[in-house]
Amino acid sequence: MQRYKRELRIPGPAPVPAEVSLQMARPMINHRGRTFQTKFPEIMRRLQPLFGTERTIYMITGSGTAGMETAVSNLLRPQVPVLCLVGGFFGRRWQELCQAYGADVHTLEFSWGSGIKPPAVGDYLKQHPEIELIFVVHNESSTAVLNDVEKIAKAREGHQALLVVDAVSSLGGVPFKMDEWGVDVVVSASQKCLMAPPGTAFISVSARAFEYLKDNPQGRYYFDLRKYAEYLERGETPFTPNINNVFALEAALDMIEAEGLDNVYARHNLMRDMLRSGIKALGLELLTTKQDASPTVTAVKIEQADAFRARINQRFGVEFAGGQGVHAGKIIRIGHMGYATPLDVLTALAVLEIELGKFGQAVKAAETVLAG
Amino acid sequence: MQRYKRELRIPGPAPVPAEVSLQMARPMINHRGRTFQTKFPEIMRRLQPLFGTERTIYMITGSGTAGMETAVSNLLRPQVPVLCLVGGFFGRRWQELCQAYGADVHTLEFSWGSGIKPPAVGDYLKQHPEIELIFVVHNESSTAVLNDVEKIAKAREGHQALLVVDAVSSLGGVPFKMDEWGVDVVVSASQKCLMAPPGTAFISVSARAFEYLKDNPQGRYYFDLRKYAEYLERGETPFTPNINNVFALEAALDMIEAEGLDNVYARHNLMRDMLRSGIKALGLELLTTKQDASPTVTAVKIEQADAFRARINQRFGVEFAGGQGVHAGKIIRIGHMGYATPLDVLTALAVLEIELGKFGQAVKAAETVLAG
Repeated sequence: MQRYKRELRIPGPAPVPAEVSLQMARPMINHRGRTFQTKFPEIMRRLQPLFGTERTIYMITGSGTAGMETAVSNLLRPQVPVLCLVGGFFGRRWQELCQAYGADVHTLEFSWGSGIKPPAVGDYLKQHPEIELIFVVHNESSTAVLNDVEKIAKAREGHQALLVVDAVSSLGGVPFKMDEWGVDVVVSASQKCLMAPPGTAFISVSARAFEYLKDNPQGRYYFDLRKYAEYLERGETPFTPNINNVFALEAALDMIEAEGLDNVYARHNLMRDMLRSGIKALGLELLTTKQDASPTVTAVKIEQADAFRARINQRFGVEFAGGQGVHAGKIIRIGHMGYATPLDVLTALAVLEIELGKFGQAVKAAETVLAG
Repeated sequence: MQRYKRELRIPGPAPVPAEVSLQMARPMINHRGRTFQTKFPEIMRRLQPLFGTERTIYMITGSGTAGMETAVSNLLRPQVPVLCLVGGFFGRRWQELCQAYGADVHTLEFSWGSGIKPPAVGDYLKQHPEIELIFVVHNESSTAVLNDVEKIAKAREGHQALLVVDAVSSLGGVPFKMDEWGVDVVVSASQKCLMAPPGTAFISVSARAFEYLKDNPQGRYYFDLRKYAEYLERGETPFTPNINNVFALEAALDMIEAEGLDNVYARHNLMRDMLRSGIKALGLELLTTKQDASPTVTAVKIEQADAFRARINQRFGVEFAGGQGVHAGKIIRIGHMGYATPLDVLTALAVLEIELGKFGQAVKAAETVLAG
């Protein structure tokens, strides 16, 4: 067997740069001591341009789903009418969370592979003025679709509903403008475009949403944002955080800021465009249209997809993800988020074309896009 | 200013050995891939001797409190009668969690600095056959008290109540025998005696408790143990874990097993005894009696305790914790858990005696204990 480097080309956890991962090995410090109290709020503030907000960002030790449940457990009361926009696995997760908390869950279903249609959302809201909360996924990584959150926010028109967005697999790779778009709650996590290890979720809440949640009597403790707000005033978290993840995030933000956010976003768009050109040059079918395509993950229809990606993993050490839900076994998903570059896209395409016996075709197409 | 190494002598997060912390910098892998699926269940099984159980151990990405809430959110229904045994900050946390989940909370209060009295628990249970769950802390780190969980379990006699124990700051430093003692739920966390970084909680559940929780309709999602049980069958967690914490735990377990569990427990007892002798030699007062004293943390009464420990921290880089609740500002707490040795106890005593101008007295007493 020849040696290959392992290439993690899944939609998260994404590869972590050595500059970042080495921070994870720092000596342990007191999370109630001065170093943490000074650095933690400063590092959280550096996330604000990525969220597009001037609001506070809170950190929860947990996965992205812990961040989603933080939103749900703070906002929901039993029987409250909510609208879940579902077009994939993570939209379904919003729905399941809202059901677990006993809400009156309305669901608008969209095809798994195309974007949420803002006019459909607007129409539904007109018929249902009672809806108090809308839940949507920005980047539906299960289908490689980027939803147009700005248009969904606008589709509310005068409607009262608060908009809650899962930006776990987009934030830091795709522009997000929470304040400008009028988004009320944004959830993200460390292990995708933020280039840090998994274990931390981030959440920001508009003034209106914080008013809405602060008197909610619904039981909650570990996820209680009122506690996080209180402790952040002294630079702390209410419960012991995974301390070094904060310093890992700092190192990742150093890299993101050095590259420049606009360049980061342009790089993700370029990787998407290169990959789509290469896939088409191989005669394979993309799951999504150009308009709906995610800049951080690309889904490709392939017969017996799981066996196909297992062969590539074994032969070249390049790991793609499979399909979820209706797409299980029918697609491969190629992650290109965070610590990924146009040259990584070329190697991802190279292993596809070698496996398919179509040497050079995809790489040629992608290089043409790269050369502009 | 002279240079000193930083010495973290707080009751968690505890220092992490380099052998362990370097695992945190490993390259990222897929938590749905074969390496994780193989290693994860194997490493969880190696925790069983520390829990004293043959039951499965589940890992939650989150703090120790996330582990406690996992117990509460799976077990509680609104209005269910529960008994919280409170003798410190973390007993109070059980009570607050149970209140947040709408239980009918009975509370037995004990003095903050002495142990839970098993006969009082037995008497209360006789008068309250309706109690379904009892919540207690094994090692109450806020008061440096080790509670006698075995006797508390026995005090139930024929009573139906399930016993839920927070063993966050004891497990791995103090013997725990879940199965033998008849404990139903045990919660622990990575950042104390387990010598790993914070960010992961562990929970084990007796067969009777799993039956009790599995049909509980109470809403839960991230903490839903039924999901953890289902995913562990294929070697996974339901939500993205902080992957490298698992490998950090593996390295810590290597060290614990190489030393031998009995030796680990004896080392913690020795550190407790050395510290108590040294403190007495300085003429200072210990918060707890010998019988109640924790093997992992020691509390010492000192005037203006926070200024005292701040001076020591600044002068020597040795960091002690302060008091919580009724003891705020009145005690210092010295952690000696996990990656701590008898020589660390000597330096902890040395800085105390230097600060108090009583050179050599405490060290002499502690060395005498060490020499046997």
